[in-house]
Amino acid sequence: MFDQSTICAISTSPGQGAIAVIRLSGEKAIDIADTVFKSPAKGKVLKAQPANTLHFGELIYNNEVVDEVVAALFKAPHSFTGEDIVEISCHGSVYIQQRILEILIEKGARMAKPGEFTQRAFLNGKMDLSQAEAVADVIASSNAAAHRLALNQMRGGFSKEVKNLRSQLLHFTAMIELELDFGEEDVEFADRTELRTLTEKIEALLRKLKNSFQLGNAIKNGIPVTIVGETNVGKSTLLNALLNEDKAIVSEIHGTTRDVIEDVVNIRGTAFRFFDTAGIRETTDHLESLGIERAYNKLEQATVVLLVVDTQNPYSTVFGRIEKIRKRINNQLLIIVANKIDSGKKETIDRLGALTLNENERLVFVAAKDKVNLDELNNTMAHAVNLDEASQEDIIVTNARHYEILKNAHKAIERVLSGLDSGITGDFLAQDTRECLHYLGEITGEITTHEVLGHIFKNFCIGK
Amino acid sequence: MFDQSTICAISTSPGQGAIAVIRLSGEKAIDIADTVFKSPAKGKVLKAQPANTLHFGELIYNNEVVDEVVAALFKAPHSFTGEDIVEISCHGSVYIQQRILEILIEKGARMAKPGEFTQRAFLNGKMDLSQAEAVADVIASSNAAAHRLALNQMRGGFSKEVKNLRSQLLHFTAMIELELDFGEEDVEFADRTELRTLTEKIEALLRKLKNSFQLGNAIKNGIPVTIVGETNVGKSTLLNALLNEDKAIVSEIHGTTRDVIEDVVNIRGTAFRFFDTAGIRETTDHLESLGIERAYNKLEQATVVLLVVDTQNPYSTVFGRIEKIRKRINNQLLIIVANKIDSGKKETIDRLGALTLNENERLVFVAAKDKVNLDELNNTMAHAVNLDEASQEDIIVTNARHYEILKNAHKAIERVLSGLDSGITGDFLAQDTRECLHYLGEITGEITTHEVLGHIFKNFCIGK
Repeated sequence: MFDQSTICAISTSPGQGAIAVIRLSGEKAIDIADTVFKSPAKGKVLKAQPANTLHFGELIYNNEVVDEVVAALFKAPHSFTGEDIVEISCHGSVYIQQRILEILIEKGARMAKPGEFTQRAFLNGKMDLSQAEAVADVIASSNAAAHRLALNQMRGGFSKEVKNLRSQLLHFTAMIELELDFGEEDVEFADRTELRTLTEKIEALLRKLKNSFQLGNAIKNGIPVTIVGETNVGKSTLLNALLNEDKAIVSEIHGTTRDVIEDVVNIRGTAFRFFDTAGIRETTDHLESLGIERAYNKLEQATVVLLVVDTQNPYSTVFGRIEKIRKRINNQLLIIVANKIDSGKKETIDRLGALTLNENERLVFVAAKDKVNLDELNNTMAHAVNLDEASQEDIIVTNARHYEILKNAHKAIERVLSGLDSGITGDFLAQDTRECLHYLGEITGEITTHEVLGHIFKNFCIGK
Repeated sequence: MFDQSTICAISTSPGQGAIAVIRLSGEKAIDIADTVFKSPAKGKVLKAQPANTLHFGELIYNNEVVDEVVAALFKAPHSFTGEDIVEISCHGSVYIQQRILEILIEKGARMAKPGEFTQRAFLNGKMDLSQAEAVADVIASSNAAAHRLALNQMRGGFSKEVKNLRSQLLHFTAMIELELDFGEEDVEFADRTELRTLTEKIEALLRKLKNSFQLGNAIKNGIPVTIVGETNVGKSTLLNALLNEDKAIVSEIHGTTRDVIEDVVNIRGTAFRFFDTAGIRETTDHLESLGIERAYNKLEQATVVLLVVDTQNPYSTVFGRIEKIRKRINNQLLIIVANKIDSGKKETIDRLGALTLNENERLVFVAAKDKVNLDELNNTMAHAVNLDEASQEDIIVTNARHYEILKNAHKAIERVLSGLDSGITGDFLAQDTRECLHYLGEITGEITTHEVLGHIFKNFCIGK
């Protein structure tokens, strides 16, 4: 079926740690481990030990003690990969990790490819494809909501939903195909009204899943936020305060196509991705330094717009600015950040406080420089887009591959619907439903190709 | 005796990996793990499981599955710390590592201090102090020789030597003190000639250990190398080639007192530390740009001097340069790197090839730019200072604390020797030997203070 050689890799984070774990999986995993593992108990070999046990010993090579290690023994099929696994815990120097890996390779293992352990778990039937894909998401998730979605998917929640859809479709298809068998007799086993109800239900489910991707993607990659405002209102100060406020800055995403740095910050368990923050931090007249077109473009890409205004300015100026931005807002959340309240004009502050806000608008008074009220701003942002709660509710699509497949499946089911409307023949209906079935099978991996597998697992880290 | 609360920490390298290991040690380790661990086998608790076993399950918090984990169970006293230990293998996202740590702390564990697991191993008598210190060195070691020395020390090789010395000294002291008991009878239980022989033996051993530190330090931190040569002979090209040649660049050591970057490279398993390489890489007339005094100072600090000469120059120029440097060489190894052989003068190359070399000199022809013969240069460097072999031979001191103690112990034993020469009384002799005994006890931790322990373990990483 597939390459069954014994594979090995460092499974813990690269670099120096107190300990590191080197994973060995395959038919010869235990044999290979036994060639280098020496227990203090004379004559004890791993091969003879029961599954799920731990063994202290020396890792020996050419009669020299390479390290003192603990070997953890898992036996097929009750292991992550479904194969025999030995996990060697060694001291965490980079040198020793590499050395042990070299020795295991010399003894007959080969270096695992990215995601190969998980791929084997899939190929050995330990999990379906969407679960296997979720393993990478679990490892990469950087906040509660993203973690919850990925873990749910890894544990089969999403597969269950897809399989459920698929079985309904299968029922539907069976009925139509039964008609085809009796084609010349012109019977209708499948009551067209029932069929229509079922198709509509499936279409609604597919649409819901497809549409959940926007949310899923925001949860997984962070909610896009852009900061706008006139020169010197304190945009860069606010950004730095937000980034420093919460120490859990997740990462700097270096844009590959544009020369942009995006900062991701966890606020109350939700990731927010600040657009084009390099520009804001480098210059205080950021928006102005960009072409107006590009600035508004950024606004459209955002889910949350932070409009910073300076309460030191007259109310008319501030209000003019707000009105200008309001015209550009579609369904984004607009948070008006009224800055410098410690030194602002009383009239401006009072009148801002009395401003009538739309449903998608919020107003927060802050003094960004002294970090006054930043907590309230954080709460406002987190509450307004409560992904943490959203992630608990439903099955949400986070995977771009699934999204593409769902779009195709949805198109197919829409063709079924319009076919029912126009009264096309059963064989055309069956063709569209079969296509839809095929797509859904690609999600769970019931239908798959080497190419698809290769593409999925190449983005995994090595060691998983 | 000591704080026995249950401690926890992430023991694998910080950052994202396929898996991460969170270690929990102390009386309540298993109880705490049981509050959050749920096995798929109904009613199964870790508490009831045998030692050295592995258990798959869910980590549950507030009725929510936080992650799927494997719990490894070790029971006191047969564990690294000598206490009950649970090691939780979780998915390696930074988020989940932090989350599980938070949960364990909420459930009653506290965050471990740096080195606290190892400190407990020492306090629980699982290892002596010099062994515990070696754990940090094992983790930090970046090449075969340093690793071997650290592992040997961790496994008690060094302690054995020190304990052996100490027991000889104890015998010596006992004999002298026996005399003191019979002081007024003017007997000499301890034959002065025998005593002298024993003292000389001990002095020689202490001296040898003390002197081994230079080698030990070179093995641990890298052999200091400096590159010298006239303008435009290709020093920076050579350095870059050496640094890139072997991908295993270990680290850049940022000097704290001077604004210097030192590069450490593993060559054939031995670490070489290149001095002041920033300067070389920034300017091609490095040596010239420094004051002559400073340049020669660097030369003295080095163990290996790479003198780069340009074979495009007339032999007289090249030879003049070699002679100038030779005068400054004491016991360093001088490697003359004859560069640009692809375009060099035939006469220069021929006459260089016929040059008579001293014992501490080597000559290698290279073309650094095209990386010609760099392998030979690497071999020459590695062979000339064969630390890999040296590290296999003897007990070598690598620890600065041990070195300081050994210096003091050696001074004390020298006082004993001169006391024997001048025929001082037994009580003075006994005082000096007692002092020496005290020092040696500080190495193994038989004699120690909280302050010393605090100082030793504060430099450990958290999680070990």
